[in-house]
Amino acid sequence: VRVKILGSAAGGGFPQWNCACRNCSGVRSGGVRANPRLQTQVAISHNGKWWCLLNASPDLRSQILNSPELHPREGQGTRDSPIASVVITGADVDQVAGLLHLREFQPLQIYATESVRGILTEENPIFRALQQAPNQATWRELPANQEFQLDCGDQPSNGFKCESISIAGDFPAYAGGITGSTVARARNSNQAVLGLILHSASGKKLAYLPNVAKLEDSWLPLLDACHTLLFDGTFWDDDELIRIRGEGKSAREMGHIPISGPEGSLKRLAGLTHPRKIYIHVNNTNPILDEDSSERQQVAAAGSEIAEDGWDFEL
Amino acid sequence: VRVKILGSAAGGGFPQWNCACRNCSGVRSGGVRANPRLQTQVAISHNGKWWCLLNASPDLRSQILNSPELHPREGQGTRDSPIASVVITGADVDQVAGLLHLREFQPLQIYATESVRGILTEENPIFRALQQAPNQATWRELPANQEFQLDCGDQPSNGFKCESISIAGDFPAYAGGITGSTVARARNSNQAVLGLILHSASGKKLAYLPNVAKLEDSWLPLLDACHTLLFDGTFWDDDELIRIRGEGKSAREMGHIPISGPEGSLKRLAGLTHPRKIYIHVNNTNPILDEDSSERQQVAAAGSEIAEDGWDFEL
Repeated sequence: VRVKILGSAAGGGFPQWNCACRNCSGVRSGGVRANPRLQTQVAISHNGKWWCLLNASPDLRSQILNSPELHPREGQGTRDSPIASVVITGADVDQVAGLLHLREFQPLQIYATESVRGILTEENPIFRALQQAPNQATWRELPANQEFQLDCGDQPSNGFKCESISIAGDFPAYAGGITGSTVARARNSNQAVLGLILHSASGKKLAYLPNVAKLEDSWLPLLDACHTLLFDGTFWDDDELIRIRGEGKSAREMGHIPISGPEGSLKRLAGLTHPRKIYIHVNNTNPILDEDSSERQQVAAAGSEIAEDGWDFEL
Repeated sequence: VRVKILGSAAGGGFPQWNCACRNCSGVRSGGVRANPRLQTQVAISHNGKWWCLLNASPDLRSQILNSPELHPREGQGTRDSPIASVVITGADVDQVAGLLHLREFQPLQIYATESVRGILTEENPIFRALQQAPNQATWRELPANQEFQLDCGDQPSNGFKCESISIAGDFPAYAGGITGSTVARARNSNQAVLGLILHSASGKKLAYLPNVAKLEDSWLPLLDACHTLLFDGTFWDDDELIRIRGEGKSAREMGHIPISGPEGSLKRLAGLTHPRKIYIHVNNTNPILDEDSSERQQVAAAGSEIAEDGWDFEL
């Protein structure tokens, strides 16, 4: 399985349009040694011909432009894409807005839980831009806490075996339901935020967990059996964003276990000895973006890596 | 008034992610001499300190990154933006999706007609991401066929005198209303698509008309009194997209008068002698994007220009 990281920042990207924190100002001026990052986007392929997107970042148009593998193929007519499917693991803006970039009458399988599909297709009709023609978007069930076949291509044999893990976490604030609407529904909280474990044909596993509000002990053996972990690296501290904005929610309240601290992910994942551990979905405020920071050294010392846009590896 | 063109392509941009037409293939391979273009986005400023965005393109995040004028200013704290307001002239995806890039708790005045505001704030709750905090988005009435004051900055004196013109055209297909929802409303078709005429303090006028389904004779004197015209250059031919896709709608059915033909905009605007005439919102399929095309020569011979990303001029 080929894995391409097309974006590694959290929502807003790095730098963020309206942010003048040390990192954002520094990356604009060159005063901080750090690489700009697009919003988190991963693409996977089992055969190099067909690709599956993990979520749909608001930066997806430029991420596709930057990736020749994702361009229309020769000899396939005037409209074509090697992007066969998209898996939506939650309804946050930075996980779904990119679907609007994919609106040009192109066949596409979109996997989402029933609740997330309802938020997008029933409660936010702007996503009907994906359903202007027959054979455009085909919505597929993304089951919670189950194995399923993730199709990716023009044949039933094209695809991945995949497991989904339901993660503690809420539906986004915007999806509170429309007052007076008959389509607002009781939501199944198991369907709000999912993690994925993808299997290669040779049995290697990739865990994709960019939004982890709470890391369950019961997952650790599952994660230790993986070859590569793409894990929530949003915040270093629980109160990081409150310090920068002067108000707001803690990392955990926003659905992200911080990296540091006795209950942080760096300590909790330290015992995993098998997988390559990569932090992804890094917020613009996170000191690990600064290549000269002590926080970055602590991550490296713990044997973990920090994703960069453009990373490309085989599973 | 300073005018910056941050994007000049129609929806999908150039090249478009899934398009292998002559233009898109050629700009990717270098076989056609043409410049890539982001989706149409214009920013205007009366004083160089505060900016107003005309619509909100899906490429807005990278368009802001590319424009130092739109970055946070020094000494304004950790969160800041010189973008004071946005005018939304219609509810097409390529006019509104960029609002989701502006979701980070930043004060913003958003002008839209009552109908368009209803589509966004009531019928598509994803846009509530702009209303997570008090003093974030303030929605302002964009009246149809009226003069109004377009605020842009922290003082009532900051802004523009502006006229709106109601243009024949429909609300986008996705905005058909939610079946069973009490918020679906009778829409006022006058509020579907607006054009703008902005006045500088010295009395010069800029017409912004990227979506023109039908060019009324009565507008011609109004347009001839302008200094600069940014006009709908989406399609060369009425059946251009049908030829490429093999099916679909004509240019006029999609709300765009074509450039060519006896009733096309090139002939209809030929009699205007005062304004600088610039085509914008150019679709990836339009032959005028090819710098070696005869169609481009015809545009030049008629005294019109074709917008490029990055153009920057004073009114």
